[in-house]
Amino acid sequence: MDRGRGLPQNGDVKMEGMLRYIVGLAMALGSAASAAGGAPNLMGFGTGGSEAQLKLEAKFDTHLAAERLEERMRRLAGRPHHAGSAAGKTNAHWIASEFERWGFETKIEIFQFLFPTPKVRDLELVEPTTFRAALREPPVAPGATSSGQPDLLPPYNAYSPDGDVTAELVYVNQGLPRDYETLERMGIDVAGKIVIARYGGSWRGIKPKVAAEHGALGCILYSDPRDDGYFQGDPYPAGAFKNVNGVQRGSVVDMPLFPGDPLTPGVGATKNARRLAIDETTTLAGIPVLPISHGDARPLLAALGGAVAPPDWRGALPMTYHLGPGPAKVHLRLSFEWSMAYAYDVIATLTGDERPEQWILRGNHHDAWVNGAHDPVSGLVAMMEEARAIGRLAQDGWRPRRTIVYAAWDAEEPGLIGSTEWVETHAEALRQRAAVYINTDSNGRGFLNAGGSHTLEAFFEELARSIVDPQKQISVAARAHAYRMVRGTPEQREVAQQSDALPLEALGSGSDYTPFLQHLGIASLNIGYGGENRGGEYHSRYDTVDHYTRFGDPGFRYGIALAQTAGHAVLRLAEADLLPFEFGRPAATFSGYVDELIRLTDEMREEHQLENRLIREGHYEAVADPTKTWITPEPRDPVPHLSFAPLRTALTELHEGARRYGVTLEERFSAPTGLPAARAVVVDEILFRVERALTREEGLPGRPWFRHQTYAPGFYTGYGVKTLPGVREAIEQRDWALAERQIGLAAATFSGFTAEIDRATAALGKE
Amino acid sequence: MDRGRGLPQNGDVKMEGMLRYIVGLAMALGSAASAAGGAPNLMGFGTGGSEAQLKLEAKFDTHLAAERLEERMRRLAGRPHHAGSAAGKTNAHWIASEFERWGFETKIEIFQFLFPTPKVRDLELVEPTTFRAALREPPVAPGATSSGQPDLLPPYNAYSPDGDVTAELVYVNQGLPRDYETLERMGIDVAGKIVIARYGGSWRGIKPKVAAEHGALGCILYSDPRDDGYFQGDPYPAGAFKNVNGVQRGSVVDMPLFPGDPLTPGVGATKNARRLAIDETTTLAGIPVLPISHGDARPLLAALGGAVAPPDWRGALPMTYHLGPGPAKVHLRLSFEWSMAYAYDVIATLTGDERPEQWILRGNHHDAWVNGAHDPVSGLVAMMEEARAIGRLAQDGWRPRRTIVYAAWDAEEPGLIGSTEWVETHAEALRQRAAVYINTDSNGRGFLNAGGSHTLEAFFEELARSIVDPQKQISVAARAHAYRMVRGTPEQREVAQQSDALPLEALGSGSDYTPFLQHLGIASLNIGYGGENRGGEYHSRYDTVDHYTRFGDPGFRYGIALAQTAGHAVLRLAEADLLPFEFGRPAATFSGYVDELIRLTDEMREEHQLENRLIREGHYEAVADPTKTWITPEPRDPVPHLSFAPLRTALTELHEGARRYGVTLEERFSAPTGLPAARAVVVDEILFRVERALTREEGLPGRPWFRHQTYAPGFYTGYGVKTLPGVREAIEQRDWALAERQIGLAAATFSGFTAEIDRATAALGKE
Repeated sequence: MDRGRGLPQNGDVKMEGMLRYIVGLAMALGSAASAAGGAPNLMGFGTGGSEAQLKLEAKFDTHLAAERLEERMRRLAGRPHHAGSAAGKTNAHWIASEFERWGFETKIEIFQFLFPTPKVRDLELVEPTTFRAALREPPVAPGATSSGQPDLLPPYNAYSPDGDVTAELVYVNQGLPRDYETLERMGIDVAGKIVIARYGGSWRGIKPKVAAEHGALGCILYSDPRDDGYFQGDPYPAGAFKNVNGVQRGSVVDMPLFPGDPLTPGVGATKNARRLAIDETTTLAGIPVLPISHGDARPLLAALGGAVAPPDWRGALPMTYHLGPGPAKVHLRLSFEWSMAYAYDVIATLTGDERPEQWILRGNHHDAWVNGAHDPVSGLVAMMEEARAIGRLAQDGWRPRRTIVYAAWDAEEPGLIGSTEWVETHAEALRQRAAVYINTDSNGRGFLNAGGSHTLEAFFEELARSIVDPQKQISVAARAHAYRMVRGTPEQREVAQQSDALPLEALGSGSDYTPFLQHLGIASLNIGYGGENRGGEYHSRYDTVDHYTRFGDPGFRYGIALAQTAGHAVLRLAEADLLPFEFGRPAATFSGYVDELIRLTDEMREEHQLENRLIREGHYEAVADPTKTWITPEPRDPVPHLSFAPLRTALTELHEGARRYGVTLEERFSAPTGLPAARAVVVDEILFRVERALTREEGLPGRPWFRHQTYAPGFYTGYGVKTLPGVREAIEQRDWALAERQIGLAAATFSGFTAEIDRATAALGKE
Repeated sequence: MDRGRGLPQNGDVKMEGMLRYIVGLAMALGSAASAAGGAPNLMGFGTGGSEAQLKLEAKFDTHLAAERLEERMRRLAGRPHHAGSAAGKTNAHWIASEFERWGFETKIEIFQFLFPTPKVRDLELVEPTTFRAALREPPVAPGATSSGQPDLLPPYNAYSPDGDVTAELVYVNQGLPRDYETLERMGIDVAGKIVIARYGGSWRGIKPKVAAEHGALGCILYSDPRDDGYFQGDPYPAGAFKNVNGVQRGSVVDMPLFPGDPLTPGVGATKNARRLAIDETTTLAGIPVLPISHGDARPLLAALGGAVAPPDWRGALPMTYHLGPGPAKVHLRLSFEWSMAYAYDVIATLTGDERPEQWILRGNHHDAWVNGAHDPVSGLVAMMEEARAIGRLAQDGWRPRRTIVYAAWDAEEPGLIGSTEWVETHAEALRQRAAVYINTDSNGRGFLNAGGSHTLEAFFEELARSIVDPQKQISVAARAHAYRMVRGTPEQREVAQQSDALPLEALGSGSDYTPFLQHLGIASLNIGYGGENRGGEYHSRYDTVDHYTRFGDPGFRYGIALAQTAGHAVLRLAEADLLPFEFGRPAATFSGYVDELIRLTDEMREEHQLENRLIREGHYEAVADPTKTWITPEPRDPVPHLSFAPLRTALTELHEGARRYGVTLEERFSAPTGLPAARAVVVDEILFRVERALTREEGLPGRPWFRHQTYAPGFYTGYGVKTLPGVREAIEQRDWALAERQIGLAAATFSGFTAEIDRATAALGKE
């Protein structure tokens, strides 16, 4: 699914705190410099190992060829191949056969999951005029879209309930909580109505969730041309953007609660798993929801009366956007085949010869909503090229030190199901053995975009400095830095002017890293290129090979860059003398998160004070246009001063622990004896469990499946990350007692994290 | 013309410096408090005078009636009545007869001015497809638009040259200097092309001026529906906004150089005035220019190829906005009747009985582009009601202390011609006698919006606190303050939270105050209501009585508020014991302008440094998409540190001088003897010349007509104000030597201003 990739951005993560650490980091990175002078060693490698590793990577590169990416894409994305389809199964078997051919020990693991597909989709405007929505994406120019039979899923939102509702329509902008606050100010209540929301601003599943919370009976989602249609660029097939018929499909299962099969929360959806009944699960959408094109949306929106929408709610359709309710009345009828489908995960293993019990995992999903040339096949074919090249190295007699596991996940689109069920099934083994998970998904021309565990940030920066951008012949790290310098947010620009360090974004959700990172605490990376491949094909019938080869990554040069980036990462992690975790960067980053939370609380306090003054002194009433409805809000309770001291204290200890580890590491690598391999195994096992210390068994408040305490998808953003989510969401929801408790828990988590680092330092320091 | 009225806003004037003064001001305002306690006296009045004045104003109010405003509007705006038309002349004579009837000594002063009207207007798309623009505004629903014959001017831009050009088209956004910088970065040159620019962002005349500077052969202006069409609200006649055929007419004469008749710069365009030949004048537009509707613009824009326009350049037409050049090629043919027309200024005088040689001037124009119900008749009918009420007071035996002059200007729309020629004709008398000029123009429902000389700010604030908002029953000052608290810019909100003082905006241009304030240095006010009357009727055929009475000011309640506001101002100024000028507010405001200039220079320096770094380190090249054209700019010379010390010094003296005047005034009013009338006359004459001290005989660099040193329309904004324009525009144009010289001149100007204040203080202090 992987929406919003392609632009290096930091979400709502601000970078303060980072600056303080950067000078110190530059020293730490050079700490493994070859004792004999010359080029510094690679992180985790001694001098000899570094040289050998660079040779291995160079050899790996010689095995990569762009034309194979295109061939594979034409095969895999030449027809619709959604999870549960015959073509999807065929693809999985072919992918497995390729891995097998390349020398991987390969199997297909099968899960059974609830997968509704549409039987009836019917949307009509019934008042004041009538119109029946087409709800279909016709083929375009010959060759641009496949015929699609028999596996073409029509536009729908998976995990909408069945329903048959008729009600007045209300336009709710993006359908987020703040939009309903605006509606409330304007005296508009959606209870008993059907809402129409434009895509954007959050993961789509948030929109029916919030609509249902406000009493709406149904929810229509549409793609406004302002967001990914003609306002952005020429529509497909002339250009890359969404045409009048294009529809964004997608799941609306409540993934911020838990991803995976709705019937098997927390356990693998194996054949004999204990399953909930459909009416027992908690993640289905609460009200019927249907996605439509802007061609279908236009008559509905045009039939709305009532107040004119606020300026930033208006899209690019040639009309005045009104809010309703009514006079537009719509009839929405949906029913689904509530079937069980099979997910086929391809798992391909190359066992390590020295530390086989340490796993480096690498995955990309293979299922699509329709053809999915971009999402996910562009990432998948690069991953396969990478695996093929590793296979060639192995055919030449090389074996990795650690075990490498490649996975092609099925059923990511319905709800990260293939990866989640596999992780839940193998949770105990993964806890014991998984060192790192590296994810990719859609890929395109442009800039490196990387997110992940900050314990891997220094490692990944070093790696990205050695990958050459195919268009500019500078490193992909340098190009990403240039992006932040020139086009970054004000915060990014400010940080970038001080340092060219490559930050990792914090990860929210939207692809298969979620169960690894956020459920089990396995250090993860999510990597892709993009930003010069914008378009409106996402989850539509028009995400085709034709589209991708013209607008996505012509010549697959960034596919090769991705194979190099992820492939070198796999090779370095598999081969390092010691796993290249580093803890100064997380300490700095987490300090920045705390700075943000303090600022957030202070700003909220000031905003509430001002708002209350505006209410109390009658300014809102004075300004309100008496010809329009305006409901002055109630004053809010003041925002208390929270005690962030426990977090500050824990982070001070973390900084110190990170420093001790760095110093000890440097001493160890520069000592004449180096680090004995047997000792390295022990330290490794401690090292990759350090990330586990950022999880708590009880999970986050109200959603125990999400255990990571520093990164989670937002409960009301869906994909967008919330850092220090327990504390942050308590503050955002104004639950001050919970916020105080969560501060204590986060501080305890950081203390545990520091204790694990100290264990590693101690183990490292022993002779 | 008066574009952009209705929202209280501060343009690019920031409010720092203001805050420092506010506490001091509150004391000064109370300085004239009645020695006997009770309500404070009105500024400029002793105790007895204040009470009498308030009674007079209450009596004045009883003479105001909204229905007369509507009657007058139906008469004056019932048919097209542009300058030079038969209906315009008829209106002038009727207005004069009304003033005469109300007891004013009335005359019509006639000027002859160059006024081109269209003979040929022809615009065709000739490649790659063909389309002929309609260039007409059809009537809408019966009664909503008058038939318009014979005086309906079709859409055109007055003072475009004749021309017949065929060339490729380029979309230049708003056609401002920064837009051409963007085009240059994208490798697009408009030399030899025809440009199409959307209205907005500046006064319209700037657009052909800048296009011609860049070598364009012709210029098309259009109204994008995003700016005042369906994106903003329902189009006329269903709603208030511009429909598919609506066109904004308007002058493109180079008013920032000098306004008034292009053939008589600096002198009155009387019958025997010495005139330039048409080819000698410097203010005609350089290239042919024509305004069109979005209905006519759409096929032209849709035919453009080339790069996609940057996001904030895109409008609300349902298409992808491309820049060109071509393949769209257009043929533009324009020719005009270059006739002389007559302007009929109505001048109505009520001579003062005590200080007849001190004039309080009050004006509103009467000419429109078409029917002009809003612009200018809404302001005009309120002014007439005000004059009628004053006439009724006079009929009851009252006479003003000072002379009151009402003026209904003709030919404002072509270029402030009626007012400018009158001011130039009577310049010497005005220099000697004019105390204050109060201007109004279009008026509507909403918030008080006032600009003017800061020497009048304290006076006007006091007055605005006594006018009751007809919708909210609070003072119009309080409602304007609430606006700044709730909807103001961040700077306005910050200032408003500290103080409820009512700021006057600095005046740029766009209505008839310009010759008074900026040519002669007569302290001026420009007053109106608006912000709840938004619409797209401006300068179109659809600015009708129907439109105004539905969307402008239903019931004319804000027309009455305007008559009260301006009428009370006239009465107070005419009756005050001493003219109520105050100098602490200007001192604070001007200090704020200097703060702004320092910040502007510092920010420019930092921006250039960063920009040069991005160029030097190759970040622009690294970020550029190689499939698109990108021309990296040349590095810029660094911004020097300018010495603002002379300005700071002069302003310190001004603050001190203002304080001395305030203290002396308080002593004088609280002394048992008061201020003898004979002495007050002498002080008055000094007081109203204080504003003159802000002018310099040589005017601004390159535009000697504009003499005021603190307020001028921007050379590249047209209406938008530039405060401390000599210094500011030198900085903006990076002419550092000129900036240093202008700092010296501005400092000398402020010193002269302080010297005049000191003269007034000295005269006031004498027994």
